Amino acid sequence: MNDPRPIGVFDSGIGGLTIAHEINKILPKEKIIYFGDTQHMPYGNKSNKKIIYYSNKIFEFLIKKQCKAIIVACNSASSVAIKQLMQKETQSCILLNVIDPLINAIKKDLSIKNIGVIGTNATIESNIYKTRIYDERSDVKVYSLATPLLASLIEEDNAKLYDKGIIESYLSHENFKTIDTLILGCTHYPLIEKKILDFYQKKIKIISSLNYFGEYVKNVFEQKDCLNQSPKKPKHQFYVSDYTNSFQKNTKLFFPTSIILREENIFS
Amino acid sequence: MNDPRPIGVFDSGIGGLTIAHEINKILPKEKIIYFGDTQHMPYGNKSNKKIIYYSNKIFEFLIKKQCKAIIVACNSASSVAIKQLMQKETQSCILLNVIDPLINAIKKDLSIKNIGVIGTNATIESNIYKTRIYDERSDVKVYSLATPLLASLIEEDNAKLYDKGIIESYLSHENFKTIDTLILGCTHYPLIEKKILDFYQKKIKIISSLNYFGEYVKNVFEQKDCLNQSPKKPKHQFYVSDYTNSFQKNTKLFFPTSIILREENIFS
Repeated sequence: MNDPRPIGVFDSGIGGLTIAHEINKILPKEKIIYFGDTQHMPYGNKSNKKIIYYSNKIFEFLIKKQCKAIIVACNSASSVAIKQLMQKETQSCILLNVIDPLINAIKKDLSIKNIGVIGTNATIESNIYKTRIYDERSDVKVYSLATPLLASLIEEDNAKLYDKGIIESYLSHENFKTIDTLILGCTHYPLIEKKILDFYQKKIKIISSLNYFGEYVKNVFEQKDCLNQSPKKPKHQFYVSDYTNSFQKNTKLFFPTSIILREENIFS
Repeated sequence: MNDPRPIGVFDSGIGGLTIAHEINKILPKEKIIYFGDTQHMPYGNKSNKKIIYYSNKIFEFLIKKQCKAIIVACNSASSVAIKQLMQKETQSCILLNVIDPLINAIKKDLSIKNIGVIGTNATIESNIYKTRIYDERSDVKVYSLATPLLASLIEEDNAKLYDKGIIESYLSHENFKTIDTLILGCTHYPLIEKKILDFYQKKIKIISSLNYFGEYVKNVFEQKDCLNQSPKKPKHQFYVSDYTNSFQKNTKLFFPTSIILREENIFS
């Protein structure tokens, strides 16, 4: 069946753009509607109650846009709001999050034994990765660490600061000494994957939802028979809750061709 | 005249607590009503339009609380929203911001010649310090630099990261080589004043609104004859737009005695 309806993708800031970009690469016929909740960014230092409230509002906005799928492209929101969003999932709209494909990968790869997870305060305090991984694998150990400064560091994108050993300072944590795999539990972090690989001198696996997400979405859509078959190039739409020049600039990095960024006040 | 009405103080996060703490030290009889807009923190990466909108809403909330003065204890809001707030100032409520006392100090101290200013993106992009200082002094030079990571660094308060040379990396900027005075243009920064002094080996002056604010408010209140003369110990009130444990913890650092932090939804 040809399903030309768009895919909704949301995050608080720029991290989700990495996911949107990946989907666009693997499924170039699909139209993406992106919502960046820049008014409340970052989600990592907000309360669970508020992250759930914002996620619900964005979900409703994307439902109104006739999305066939809504992708929670934010680990903080995937960690604390997914249960509530699942209650809103309908027959005609699939709900996907950035944590499931990682759990699937860890389930299958039995060489993984000692896992480190880094993420925002909200993600790490939710214990979602530990809980989900232990549900699937009783033979592994999971160590998690909040690394709240990394998202701000990536947003600033200041070369001089990258050299200051902030990444190294976090990753040299004692609990991480024996890990064989590191989960990048924030959609910002793949943007510094190379620096993290350098720190570990490629001796451990670095995984993030970005590694699996395009294929994961493609599989789900094939199974549900809802791919877009139209040969027309899709016109993506980008919305933010607070228009800023820096977000406009970042969007262009991922989607260089004539992006129109619109502000939409869905919270008042 | 005895004026027992409270003083309203607001900021997006914890920075304004330094100002509230200072007022409490100099004017211990005054009751403070603090509003922390944690739902939208940090203001530094938000648009001017939104900072103005949030500031207006908080102003209205504090007016309803019968405040005799409202203090914009945030440089980002003082930079971009003060003009709009001044239109709301009334005979019965004084509006104060964190920039005025610094400008007064620079006006008086003729030994100051080369000034560096650090602050959030919103504050630095507004050019408020440059504009205001050049209005008063044509014989000085002002260099400004956005240091967006510092507020996140201070909020995380991770000793290991302080040693990573982030502060030094910013301050070693070429334009800052000849400064004799550094303005801490964000109410967070006095919390790392010692580290900044160490960097400069005490060879330059470090000034922030915190150095002048208590005395400044006292003078204004004496002139307007609206000090509280009541001998009763005031009961401060603390409101946030998003209740989080971390803000509760930070509030206790500044006001250790039995603080009750209340969430107030003034934006929806």
